[in-house]
Amino acid sequence: MRVNMILDKINKPNDIKRIDPEEYEQLAQEIRQFLIDSISKTGGHLASNLGVVELTMALHIVFDLPTDKLIWDVGHQSYTHKILTGRKNQFNKLRKYGGMSGFPKRNESNYDAFDTGHSSTSISAGLGYASARNITGEDYHVISVIGDGALTGGMAYEALNNASSLKKNFIIVLNDNSMSISENVGGISRILDDVRSSYSYYDLKEDVKNTLHKLPNGDALVEKIKKTKSNIKQFIVPGQIFEDMGIQYLGPVDGHNIHKLIKIFNIAKRVDSPVLVHVVTQKGHGYAPAEKNPSRFHGIGPFDIKTGKSLSVGKGESYSAVFSRKICDIAKNDRSVVAITAAMPDGTGLDKFKKWFPDRFFDVGIAEEHAVTFSAGLAAGGMKPVFAVYSSFLQRAFDQILHDVCMQQLHVVFAIDRAGLVGSDGETHQGIFDLSFLSVIPNMTIIAPKNGWELENALEFALEHFYGPIAIRYPRGCAYTGLSEYAQPIEYGKSELIHEGSHICLMAVGNMMETALTTGERLKEYNIDATIVNARFVKPIDEDMICDIADEHELLVTLEENVYTGGFGEAVSRYTQMNGLNIRTLGIALPDDYIEHGNVDILKHEAGIDAEAVFDRIMETIADMKNNG
Amino acid sequence: MRVNMILDKINKPNDIKRIDPEEYEQLAQEIRQFLIDSISKTGGHLASNLGVVELTMALHIVFDLPTDKLIWDVGHQSYTHKILTGRKNQFNKLRKYGGMSGFPKRNESNYDAFDTGHSSTSISAGLGYASARNITGEDYHVISVIGDGALTGGMAYEALNNASSLKKNFIIVLNDNSMSISENVGGISRILDDVRSSYSYYDLKEDVKNTLHKLPNGDALVEKIKKTKSNIKQFIVPGQIFEDMGIQYLGPVDGHNIHKLIKIFNIAKRVDSPVLVHVVTQKGHGYAPAEKNPSRFHGIGPFDIKTGKSLSVGKGESYSAVFSRKICDIAKNDRSVVAITAAMPDGTGLDKFKKWFPDRFFDVGIAEEHAVTFSAGLAAGGMKPVFAVYSSFLQRAFDQILHDVCMQQLHVVFAIDRAGLVGSDGETHQGIFDLSFLSVIPNMTIIAPKNGWELENALEFALEHFYGPIAIRYPRGCAYTGLSEYAQPIEYGKSELIHEGSHICLMAVGNMMETALTTGERLKEYNIDATIVNARFVKPIDEDMICDIADEHELLVTLEENVYTGGFGEAVSRYTQMNGLNIRTLGIALPDDYIEHGNVDILKHEAGIDAEAVFDRIMETIADMKNNG
Repeated sequence: MRVNMILDKINKPNDIKRIDPEEYEQLAQEIRQFLIDSISKTGGHLASNLGVVELTMALHIVFDLPTDKLIWDVGHQSYTHKILTGRKNQFNKLRKYGGMSGFPKRNESNYDAFDTGHSSTSISAGLGYASARNITGEDYHVISVIGDGALTGGMAYEALNNASSLKKNFIIVLNDNSMSISENVGGISRILDDVRSSYSYYDLKEDVKNTLHKLPNGDALVEKIKKTKSNIKQFIVPGQIFEDMGIQYLGPVDGHNIHKLIKIFNIAKRVDSPVLVHVVTQKGHGYAPAEKNPSRFHGIGPFDIKTGKSLSVGKGESYSAVFSRKICDIAKNDRSVVAITAAMPDGTGLDKFKKWFPDRFFDVGIAEEHAVTFSAGLAAGGMKPVFAVYSSFLQRAFDQILHDVCMQQLHVVFAIDRAGLVGSDGETHQGIFDLSFLSVIPNMTIIAPKNGWELENALEFALEHFYGPIAIRYPRGCAYTGLSEYAQPIEYGKSELIHEGSHICLMAVGNMMETALTTGERLKEYNIDATIVNARFVKPIDEDMICDIADEHELLVTLEENVYTGGFGEAVSRYTQMNGLNIRTLGIALPDDYIEHGNVDILKHEAGIDAEAVFDRIMETIADMKNNG
Repeated sequence: MRVNMILDKINKPNDIKRIDPEEYEQLAQEIRQFLIDSISKTGGHLASNLGVVELTMALHIVFDLPTDKLIWDVGHQSYTHKILTGRKNQFNKLRKYGGMSGFPKRNESNYDAFDTGHSSTSISAGLGYASARNITGEDYHVISVIGDGALTGGMAYEALNNASSLKKNFIIVLNDNSMSISENVGGISRILDDVRSSYSYYDLKEDVKNTLHKLPNGDALVEKIKKTKSNIKQFIVPGQIFEDMGIQYLGPVDGHNIHKLIKIFNIAKRVDSPVLVHVVTQKGHGYAPAEKNPSRFHGIGPFDIKTGKSLSVGKGESYSAVFSRKICDIAKNDRSVVAITAAMPDGTGLDKFKKWFPDRFFDVGIAEEHAVTFSAGLAAGGMKPVFAVYSSFLQRAFDQILHDVCMQQLHVVFAIDRAGLVGSDGETHQGIFDLSFLSVIPNMTIIAPKNGWELENALEFALEHFYGPIAIRYPRGCAYTGLSEYAQPIEYGKSELIHEGSHICLMAVGNMMETALTTGERLKEYNIDATIVNARFVKPIDEDMICDIADEHELLVTLEENVYTGGFGEAVSRYTQMNGLNIRTLGIALPDDYIEHGNVDILKHEAGIDAEAVFDRIMETIADMKNNG
C-alpha cells in the first residue's frame, strides 16, 4: 500500500496547480485507480472517464477555473473534473439520492459552468458564454469539450457553423475516441479516421511546398492555387473541414500525453478566433477490461476489479430484453419490419436485431431528429420502421414526430424505453415528459403496457394490426411478471378491466399498475373494494370505459409515472368535465418539476406516487368529498 | 398577346416530356410569367419559385415521376412542380381555404412524395425512401432538393452524415442561392462561397497534375499524397467537404441553364452512391423587383407587377412591429438585452434591433436548437437573451428549452410570434401547440397578452421584473387595440378582471379576448351577464382567481387558440377537480388535429372557436347543466 499518494494533495479546487509537473503522470495513474476503485463499488460511467484523465488535468493546469468556463458535453465524463474541484470525498455517494450527481451541476459547484446530460449542447452553450463575454468586455476563456460521437448530433454542427462569426478566442476540445456510447458511424467519423492517421501531414506539407517552389513555374502555381481560395493548406493540413468553416484547427495530439496537452492548450489560449483542439484519447484507457469492451463499461453497476465482471445479480428479464426478443420474432416473419437506433444498439436491445437482420438495421448516430424523419421516409417507402429510443432523448425529435410522422399519418412505431423514472442518471435522463409531449400531437396513439406480456402484444399490435404513428412506452429495469392471467387481446383505444369493485376506481398507466394493486390491497383494509383498470391506451383515452366508471363510482383515480401537466390524468379530468360526468377525479402523477438522481423507490416516495402516498391522497380526497357533501 | 403558348401544352403530369427541347427556354419564360401573374393576384411565395423554374423542369424531364420520388425541402418552392403535375388551374385558389396548398401534400397529388414545411427534413426523408427501396429491391430514384439556407439546420447535417452509409444512388440537389429567407450566415455558407467562385478548378486540376508528373520525383510525390488518404482531389475539386463525408459531388452548375441541368442530372442518375448536385440559382430570377429584394418577395401578398409594390393596405401595427419597437426601447437603456433569431430578422421584427444594436444581435441561421442553447449560454454569461421565433419553428427546440434553459432556470425570454392560427401557410405553420408543449416544461412561465399594450408590458415585465425562463406568445397580424382602458400592471401569475358578472365566467387567453367580448355581448341578449377575465398567465394558472370564480359562478369557460390537449383549459379543469371546486368547466380550444390553410376567420369558424360557435357551446352546456339538475 502506497503511503504518500499525490492524490492526497488534491483536496480543494486548483490544488493541481501546485503539483510538480514531474508528478503529473503519477497523479494521472492515481486518479485512474481512484476512479476504478470507486466506480467498482458505486457503479457509474467508467470508460469515458478513464479516457479523459490527462485531458482534464491539462485543462485545469492551463486554465483558471472558475473564471474560465469549462463545459462538458454530455457530462458523464466529468468525474476527474469533480475530483480536481474538491469533490473527491463525495464519490462514495455518487449518483445516490442526496449524493453527488454523475453530471456537471451548477448548483453543485461553481466550477461546473453549464449543466449537461443530453448530447451535443456544449458548443452552443460555450458560444453563448463567449458572446456574452465579448459584449461585457470581460476577459476569460471558454472551453467546450465535445466527443466525436456528440459531433454526429445536428445541433453541434449548427453551433460550429455559427461559431465562425465569433472574432475572439473560444476553445472547442474535440475528444476523439472514435466512439459514441457504441461504435461511431457516419461521414464525419470517416473524416476523423483520415485525420487521425495523418501525423505525417506536417512533413508532407514541407515536401510539397519545397517541390513546387523548385519548379520553373512553381511559384506561379502556388499563387494560382492560393487565388482559387482553396488554400494549399487544404490538402496538407488535417481538419481542413473545420478551417473551411472559419474555425482554427490544432492537432491531432495524443490525449494521454499530459505535457503535449498542456503545450497545445497554451497555444490554443492565444488564438484570436474559435479554435478546435483535436485530442485523440482511448475510452477505458488504463483498465484492460474497459479498453477491450468500452461499450460495456460505458455506464455500469458495481463490478469486480480483477475480472471486470458485473456484481449485480440479474433480477429477471428487462423490458428492453422483452422488446429485443419480440421484435426479432416479428421481423423473422415480416420482412417489412426495420429497426432504427440513435447510437444505442445495446441499451435499447436492438443489438440482436442488428446481428440477425443487418440489412434492416440502421444506426444513424446521436441524431434523434434525423432518426425520426428517416423513419418517416422509410414508412413512406413501404417499410414498418421501429425507432427504439430512450424517452428523454426522444424529446429532441418533438417537431419531427409532429411535422414529419404524425401530420402524414405515417406508420412509424416508437419503442420508448427508459420511460418514467430512471434513477441514478437524474434530471436530464428521467423519462417523465413523454406522455405529455406525445399526447399533444394529433394522430398519435400511445400504449403503456402493464407487464412484459403486454409489451410483446403491444408490439405485435403496433406492427401487424395497426396503421399509423404509435408509441409504446415502458420503463427501465425488469419487466413486471404479475397479472399474467390478465391477457385480454389489445383492441384499439380500449382499456382492460382487472378487478370490478365499487365507489372508487384506480385507472393505472403501464407500470403504475403495481402501485394500483398495492393501493387496492391497502384500501381493502378499510373496506373499500376499489375497481382496478389497466388504462393501456393513454391516447386515445377510453371514453366508454370512463363513462362506465362514472356511472358506478364516485371517485376516479388516475395513476401515471409522468408529470401531471399535459398527462393522462389531465386528459381524463377534462373529459369528465366536458361531458358533465358525475364523478370526481384525482390525478396521481409526478409534480411539475425536474427530479434528481437516486434510487427509483426513494424518488417515487418523495414525489408522492408510491402506494403509501397514493393511499394517503385517496383517503384525503374521500374525506374532502364527505365534507363537501 | 401570345396566341400559341407552350404552357398550354402542359396540362397533365409528364406533359413536359413531350415538349421539344428547343422550346424549353420559352417554356421557362412562360412559367415564370405565369407565376408572377398568378402570385401578384393571390399572394404566395415568389422569389424562391422564380429561382427553381429550370431546375424543376430539368428534374421532371430527366426523372420518371411519380415512380421516382422527388422531395422538396421546406416545400414553398414547389409551384413549378405543381404546374408540371396537372395543377396549373388551381393557382387561382392557391393557399385559400379548400384550395391548393402552397406546400407539397401527399393527399393533394401522388407526385408529392413527402409533405414538407419546416426546414432541413428532405435529406432524412429521402434517405428513408432510398433505404426502403434498397430493402425491397425496387428500382427508382430518390431526389431531395435542399437550399443552402436549409443546410444550416442541424438535421440536414445529421442526414448527410448518415447518407454516407448508403451504397446505392440517392440524389441530393443543393439549390444554392446564397440565401435562406434572409441573407445566409455561418461557416457552411462560407465554404459554398468559395466553391461557387471556383469554376476554374477543373483547369487548375490539370495544371497541377501535369506539373507534378513532369518532375523527376513528381510521380512519387503524387503517390505519397494519395497515401496520406488526403487525395489530391482535396485541393482541386470543389465540394470536397461532401466527398470527405462519402457523398459524391457534382457541380457547380448554372441553375438557369436547363440543358446543362439535364446533362448533370443524367450523370447523377448513374452514380452508384449518394451524390450531391450543386446547382447555383438566383432567387427571384427573371423578375427585377424580386431579384433586387428577394427577402421581400419571399412570401408576399398581392402586388403590382409593374412596380413590385404591395397592394395590401396596412391595417394597423402588427404584433411583430409592437415587439420590434418595444425591444429596442428596452435595449436602449439595458445593455444586457441581446436578441437572437434563427434566420428571421425581418419576420420577427428584429431587423430594427439588428440595425441599432449590431453587437448584441445574433442571427444563427435556420438552427432553432442551437439558438435556444446558445441563448442559455448567453444567459449563463450574464446577458438577457430574447429569442424571437415563430411558434411552429420553436417546436424544433423542445428539448433544448426543457434541458438547457428551464432545468437551469436561466433567464431566457422567448418572444413567440405567429402563435395561433397563421392562415395560408397551413398545417406546418399553424402555431397551435406552443401553450401545450411549453406548459409541460417545469420552471417555464407563459404570458399571452390581450392587446398591443400588454405585449409591451409583458416584454418589460419579462426583461426587467422577472428572473427565469419566460415565454410571451402573440399571434400573426395586427395587434388588438381594444380594451386600452384595462391596463392593470403585470403581476406574476395574476390574471386581470375585465368585467364582473355572474353565473358564467369567460376566461380568455391572449387574442381570444376579442372572441370572449363578442360572446359576452351575445350572452347579454339572453340576459346572461358573464364575468370576463383576461387569463394573461397560462403558466402558472391563477389559482386564486379560479377559486374566486368557482365561489361565485356555475360555469367557467376557458378560451384559447391552441389545441385542447395539454393546453390551458385542461390545466384549469384538472385544478378545479383536484381541489373539489364546485364549478363546471368548458374548454374552448382547437381540436386535436392539424388545421389546413385558409383565411383565419374561416378556420376559426370551422374549428369551433369563433364567437358564434363559442356561444352555441355555452348554451348547450347550460342546457346540459339544467337537465342534470
